[in-house]
Amino acid sequence: MIENFHGGDVYSREIMYDFSANINPLGMPDGVKRALINNIGKFERYPDIRCTELKRALSAHECVCAENIVCGNGAADLIYRAVQTLKPKRALISAPTFSEYERALSSVDCHLEHYFTHEEDNFSVRDDILQQVCGMDMMFICNPNNPVGNLIDMDLLGLIIKKCAECGTVLIIDECFIDFVEKYSGIDCVIPENTIILKAFTKIYAMAGLRLGYMLCGSRTLADKIQDCGQCWSVSVPAQIAGIAALDENNYVLKSVALVTEERLYLSGCLKKLGFKVYPSSANFILFKCQFPLDKLLLKHKIAIRNCSDYIGLGKEWFRVAVMTHEKNQALIAAIERCIQTYG
Amino acid sequence: MIENFHGGDVYSREIMYDFSANINPLGMPDGVKRALINNIGKFERYPDIRCTELKRALSAHECVCAENIVCGNGAADLIYRAVQTLKPKRALISAPTFSEYERALSSVDCHLEHYFTHEEDNFSVRDDILQQVCGMDMMFICNPNNPVGNLIDMDLLGLIIKKCAECGTVLIIDECFIDFVEKYSGIDCVIPENTIILKAFTKIYAMAGLRLGYMLCGSRTLADKIQDCGQCWSVSVPAQIAGIAALDENNYVLKSVALVTEERLYLSGCLKKLGFKVYPSSANFILFKCQFPLDKLLLKHKIAIRNCSDYIGLGKEWFRVAVMTHEKNQALIAAIERCIQTYG
Repeated sequence: MIENFHGGDVYSREIMYDFSANINPLGMPDGVKRALINNIGKFERYPDIRCTELKRALSAHECVCAENIVCGNGAADLIYRAVQTLKPKRALISAPTFSEYERALSSVDCHLEHYFTHEEDNFSVRDDILQQVCGMDMMFICNPNNPVGNLIDMDLLGLIIKKCAECGTVLIIDECFIDFVEKYSGIDCVIPENTIILKAFTKIYAMAGLRLGYMLCGSRTLADKIQDCGQCWSVSVPAQIAGIAALDENNYVLKSVALVTEERLYLSGCLKKLGFKVYPSSANFILFKCQFPLDKLLLKHKIAIRNCSDYIGLGKEWFRVAVMTHEKNQALIAAIERCIQTYG
Repeated sequence: MIENFHGGDVYSREIMYDFSANINPLGMPDGVKRALINNIGKFERYPDIRCTELKRALSAHECVCAENIVCGNGAADLIYRAVQTLKPKRALISAPTFSEYERALSSVDCHLEHYFTHEEDNFSVRDDILQQVCGMDMMFICNPNNPVGNLIDMDLLGLIIKKCAECGTVLIIDECFIDFVEKYSGIDCVIPENTIILKAFTKIYAMAGLRLGYMLCGSRTLADKIQDCGQCWSVSVPAQIAGIAALDENNYVLKSVALVTEERLYLSGCLKKLGFKVYPSSANFILFKCQFPLDKLLLKHKIAIRNCSDYIGLGKEWFRVAVMTHEKNQALIAAIERCIQTYG
């Protein structure tokens, strides 16, 4: 039986505003829609298994050689493929974090260790994580971290990369939300050999339904191995076409980041004013604490938010909301106010 | 490094007519294209992980309960997921057959046994295969078989199903080309518990680029297990929308089968007249034998055909061509005639 432990499930209930999935509030760029419609005849053919044109565009966009890039059926596909390729015996993940790392690692019977971050520290990764690295075959760092939205300290990330290199640990840095971060310099263009950067078109280009993610691998051998794991046609024709078109949308990305930055400030401010503990976020979502079952109450207003009770290291008092357009954010706050009145 | 051992690679060279991939020559139905364009706004959302509407439509179409259906990112995705779920230690596949079974089984370090069919017997599966079933955790039967196009004898298939049930062997019957077969009754509506029928929208609806396949599982427990293996969002929104629309295209399917049946007869006749040994096919492709490198010669005419040298049990003298529209089939025959003149 499938249970949905993620956001974005608007299919099993009637939802007007979905704050549970962290999708760009501006929606899919028109240029992407046009490219899809203009190329619909190509959907008949098998996809290019090499994603040649898409990788060429990504290579220019990310300053990484095409040979070091692996594309997949969404970032989640690549998490499973990397894990199934490398079959780690021991792995380290922080908590709370995105749950697919753990699910993927469990599928190869990997022994998991958690590095627990703490509420009183706003769930920040600290340098004591370095003590847990050696002996690990694989390690995941989500930056900014889902569901908190906080960035890891860049100096610490450098130390983790160094430590992983020393210990032979493959480090996967999940940057699926990094493009929403204002003024983020990112890690150097030269990716260390045992490091993989995971990114997706899902969130920043609002392409969740098309399924397109990619990995920038420090080593070509690693990229080849992950590429060869599983079926060769995993990236659909629409995903490849949409991805190529999306990479032209520089203004859309700038506009999105500006909107998200402004609205995150607005939404955090409102939530704080309502008395919730709100955690600092650099992403397009906000984690906050609420002592009553807000998600259930909001469903009556046809609004979905993410209940974080299934995150290891969190509990039923934590909720995550996406940053949407001002109008929708206002509607959320108004609905929460009504919930507080009803509940109080 | 990726090598393409399959047909349909029109990306790495200039091709005018692609006979190497076995796609419906009528192309994607207009109704499917319309559904995609009308619903393009939904591509932003995460896909329905349960494929609720698609499974409802498939359930009615296939007379199988929705709970017994698993949808995937193309049939190839499901082959890997079934293998990764059940992790068979020993498996039986016939030879020659579709190579992805072997690739998928190798990824879990499964010990493989081949049942070799013979050229003088038109590569038919015979009842001596029954002797190889016991001791196997999994078995694949491709019906009609790719790359030959022949159907397995229905009585023999019944015996194989029975034998697999006795021996605890999970039987996967790949029916990805079955919808091209004229007057095929198929196996009974009640699928035996340890049997899985694998089908795809890829070929019959010319949706190769969209990636959509499905499994009809004899047991719900088996369906649930395969469903839970890997990421939950593997079936994209466009694939789900296209699949639902495709299942309404009954006339298109009838028209396709009639065209393929007529053109298969035409193409086989022409190939025989040119002196090639042609194997009986019930599918939308034809296997034939040719002593010279016809695929390379045809590339000069910008025509791609499938060189079958990488199929276990075949060799460099075998080639597979898709059955296309009459005009294209004529163009293929004319080009082959020119190759014969040049080569002779």
